Amino acid sequence: MIICGVDPGLTRCGVGIIEAGSARRLSFIHVDVIRSSPQDPQDIRLLAVFNGLSQKFGTFVPDVVSIERVFAQENRNTVLGTAQAAGLAMVAAAQRGIPVALHTPTEAKMAVTGNGQANKDQVQAMVAKILSLNEPPSPPDAADSLALAICHALRPSGAIQGGEREQHLTAAQKQWTDAVRSLKSKGVRRDM
Amino acid sequence: MIICGVDPGLTRCGVGIIEAGSARRLSFIHVDVIRSSPQDPQDIRLLAVFNGLSQKFGTFVPDVVSIERVFAQENRNTVLGTAQAAGLAMVAAAQRGIPVALHTPTEAKMAVTGNGQANKDQVQAMVAKILSLNEPPSPPDAADSLALAICHALRPSGAIQGGEREQHLTAAQKQWTDAVRSLKSKGVRRDM
Repeated sequence: MIICGVDPGLTRCGVGIIEAGSARRLSFIHVDVIRSSPQDPQDIRLLAVFNGLSQKFGTFVPDVVSIERVFAQENRNTVLGTAQAAGLAMVAAAQRGIPVALHTPTEAKMAVTGNGQANKDQVQAMVAKILSLNEPPSPPDAADSLALAICHALRPSGAIQGGEREQHLTAAQKQWTDAVRSLKSKGVRRDM
Repeated sequence: MIICGVDPGLTRCGVGIIEAGSARRLSFIHVDVIRSSPQDPQDIRLLAVFNGLSQKFGTFVPDVVSIERVFAQENRNTVLGTAQAAGLAMVAAAQRGIPVALHTPTEAKMAVTGNGQANKDQVQAMVAKILSLNEPPSPPDAADSLALAICHALRPSGAIQGGEREQHLTAAQKQWTDAVRSLKSKGVRRDM
């Protein structure tokens, strides 16, 4: 299955795409950072992030999008933009009928380094090792998005394979998948 | 000019549309509350709000969308959903090339009641009076969205008329309007 990790942000939004095969075998596909300029109006910045994410989802057609869960108690200067970027990632995925999973930064760090408090260098190094990259992904937003994808692939419910995907979905994700299947069976397109 | 006020929210998102003529003459056009169920997955809820807003902008073709400015220090339980809904309103407007203005709740209350600390009953009553409605708009989200539209029409820079609109735009809004005009002159559609 194809997993797209999103490290949400307004100035830099990381997008990392991997393939998870059998026996927890993970392969690197793509990584990029969507950027918007702090000099631009907020609506233009949000539109740039939305269009960038939507384009990635259209190009790589992930089976699931793994987005960092945002908490209200985070840095007040950036939390709103981060939450808005995460919301846009959810809408861009939902428009294409792609299920969404949310994972905390601690879960992502734990998944790739074994330490939920790992620093950025450690995350970058371990992401490179897990995905057999020649050098650590940079900037940290790129590495974090790949870590979120890896986190989803390696989460405790076990290795993911295409056929068994749905049994690992949350109740909400299952509900969504069922609704999309129902729409598809009626010939309704969701990617308008 | 047509002004659309948006009181952003995930459970209830108010949308109020008025026409601002010369001499600060304001007319009611439409009000509605877009709702999503807390029982639904977050991505489905956000998509419902986005689609609802985008549909309103497409139907009423406002000249400007006036959105409540969200602050990080607000209620932690709802601020992220509120910020995400505001972000979706900005993207839905930007996709159609509609300029966005942000106004604080205090500005909106001040504009309709003369008191930045007015309660919901006072706002509802004054919105009804200003727009010559037979009864106060309800729920409060509906009244608040109309208050945001009124606030934009009556802001201190003076009464707004179609022809003089641009001189009241912020530098960022001006930049956006210029960019849109440039695109339109090249035949590029932005409402894809």
